[in-house]
Amino acid sequence: MTDPSAPLPGADIDRRLRGPVRVVGAGLLGASIGLALREKGVDVVLDDVSPAALALAVDYGAGRPPAAGDAPELVVVAVPPDVVAAVVERELADHPDAVVTDVASVKSGPLETLRASGADIGRYIGSHPMAGRERSGPTAARADLFVGRPWVVAGHDAITYHRAAVVEDLALDVGATVVPMDPASHDLAVAYVSHAPQLVSTLMAARLRDAPDGSLDLAGGGVRDVTRIAASDPGLWVQIIAANAGHIRPVLADLRDDLDRVLDALDAPHRAGAPRALAETMAAGNRGVERLPGKHGTTKRFAQVVVLVDDTPGQIAALLTFIGEIGINLEDMRLEHSPGAPIGIVEVSVVPEQEQRLVEELEGRGWRIAAAWA
Amino acid sequence: MTDPSAPLPGADIDRRLRGPVRVVGAGLLGASIGLALREKGVDVVLDDVSPAALALAVDYGAGRPPAAGDAPELVVVAVPPDVVAAVVERELADHPDAVVTDVASVKSGPLETLRASGADIGRYIGSHPMAGRERSGPTAARADLFVGRPWVVAGHDAITYHRAAVVEDLALDVGATVVPMDPASHDLAVAYVSHAPQLVSTLMAARLRDAPDGSLDLAGGGVRDVTRIAASDPGLWVQIIAANAGHIRPVLADLRDDLDRVLDALDAPHRAGAPRALAETMAAGNRGVERLPGKHGTTKRFAQVVVLVDDTPGQIAALLTFIGEIGINLEDMRLEHSPGAPIGIVEVSVVPEQEQRLVEELEGRGWRIAAAWA
Repeated sequence: MTDPSAPLPGADIDRRLRGPVRVVGAGLLGASIGLALREKGVDVVLDDVSPAALALAVDYGAGRPPAAGDAPELVVVAVPPDVVAAVVERELADHPDAVVTDVASVKSGPLETLRASGADIGRYIGSHPMAGRERSGPTAARADLFVGRPWVVAGHDAITYHRAAVVEDLALDVGATVVPMDPASHDLAVAYVSHAPQLVSTLMAARLRDAPDGSLDLAGGGVRDVTRIAASDPGLWVQIIAANAGHIRPVLADLRDDLDRVLDALDAPHRAGAPRALAETMAAGNRGVERLPGKHGTTKRFAQVVVLVDDTPGQIAALLTFIGEIGINLEDMRLEHSPGAPIGIVEVSVVPEQEQRLVEELEGRGWRIAAAWA
Repeated sequence: MTDPSAPLPGADIDRRLRGPVRVVGAGLLGASIGLALREKGVDVVLDDVSPAALALAVDYGAGRPPAAGDAPELVVVAVPPDVVAAVVERELADHPDAVVTDVASVKSGPLETLRASGADIGRYIGSHPMAGRERSGPTAARADLFVGRPWVVAGHDAITYHRAAVVEDLALDVGATVVPMDPASHDLAVAYVSHAPQLVSTLMAARLRDAPDGSLDLAGGGVRDVTRIAASDPGLWVQIIAANAGHIRPVLADLRDDLDRVLDALDAPHRAGAPRALAETMAAGNRGVERLPGKHGTTKRFAQVVVLVDDTPGQIAALLTFIGEIGINLEDMRLEHSPGAPIGIVEVSVVPEQEQRLVEELEGRGWRIAAAWA
């Protein structure tokens, strides 16, 4: 049994935080932050209202229980959205020398509540790591949860640049990419890229309850993509949506107006004006999706090549190995399964300039190509 | 220069159709059907209102031009939705011994139009291959376009089982899986699994036009999935949607009613009843997406393991090779790119019973795991 407060073997590796870091809330995010910081040799103090959750996270190596005299440089509040402001306020009072951050999905509400309550927001700055919404609990925690993910640091005028830096240090120490953004901009952004898409996906998936038996056997990649995130946890999402309702509602209200125009057109699709309304809706969708940045933040369009393989991991591996060997860079890939056939359908994306050579090289080696387009 | 009507070297391979097969419309679907049947040694007669499109498809080896005395056993009408019924009617009259099918996305309308016009629908049966909507034109045609894809054969009471069999033969000869379904059931099914999701994806993507610059940098896999098919071709989709408006409209009208309840809840998210309305909406989405069949038609849920790799095709190939070597079957996989970091994020799906062993084996070999959940 090792002393959980002792520096780990990795303690001499490059890190920004000095520690100790106090993490309040030993769920997925809190425990993952603890694991990541422990790997860097930071002294992590864990706390949780549930002694069982705390003991479990300590067992997993995410940190140590609190002790008298702990003097954290940073407190990370990783608790459910509805109690964030209250816990942050308590931590600011309990640790008058520490900077306090939280990792909740909505950023304006807690800051406003704290400002109104007279809390010392000169030591508070919210943040939001874009990772880990798939499940919950310390047993799912991973030190690598945040690697390569954006971590929004939601700055405001009441905290100095110098004090805020410790939160950027946290993000960098756990492998994330810092994205500075003020709280309102963050909340509007996640309304567009996370909360409204979640509700739209959910609303479409809910309609599938009424689909006749057998009709879902025709489901292809499209409806699967649209409804994938509808499998998300209701309990967590109700809190997130409620906390950001002010930003989500206008986006969905505009969508409802657009939907009403579509319903009008569907009511008499050959009436003058209806084809144009549908065409303009489709074109607007084209323009919207084109705004999403691609790999590494580019908005470059890619060519697609659809390759048929035997439905075994070895075959897909062989395909990717071959693509690597001929020096073509894979920008993206998707896997489809064909119902009732032992065929795997692999869609690979490459830069358009490489599409023709990829097709020729694959065919030259006997791969079967079902489609290719730039 | 070989005679394009001569049997190909593959002419002795197993096939069901005798031929000739006349394909009207030398676009993506028509030319792909031609290529697939030519590979089986079937005599394919191509026709198109555009002499240039016809010549191009013939050049690609999809068939030969029409000649006097052609007596097709089967005519495949592969033309835009708005002219399907007229072309089918003409082909029925021109080829009184042939069965005629079409491959359009909507099946009730053409049959009703033909029935009303007094056409010989004892020789017509519509069909719908679920493939190839990504792009258009004969230059994109591929013999393998239909391999492993469902091909709906939309039966009705006016055609005998015996006569309809030739359309099943067509589907099987090009490698597809036959799905028998009456026209109204088909049209209702595609409203749920294709047309409504297309419009929902489009409506969400259209909203992204109004997102502030920079906010889309936070886009993760969720919004990308939801809006992926919003990149579809407006011209084609306006015709498909108009042709199936009667089935799509009720689905979207129900969705609009659900959306109105969400908007009400967002208006005062902490008012009594609002949290429950949001929770019920989320739960309804959970139940809907659970109805979608998984790989090979099962509805089994899979465990997810998220692995971090260097962002190279060789690394992904090595991961899949390793998974194959330890005897774990890959049920699905997705690739994510992390903005601004040279990290690839690979989410692999396996049966839940294999999750723990996969994680242990991967960690034992030094792979980095960012998340795992069953």
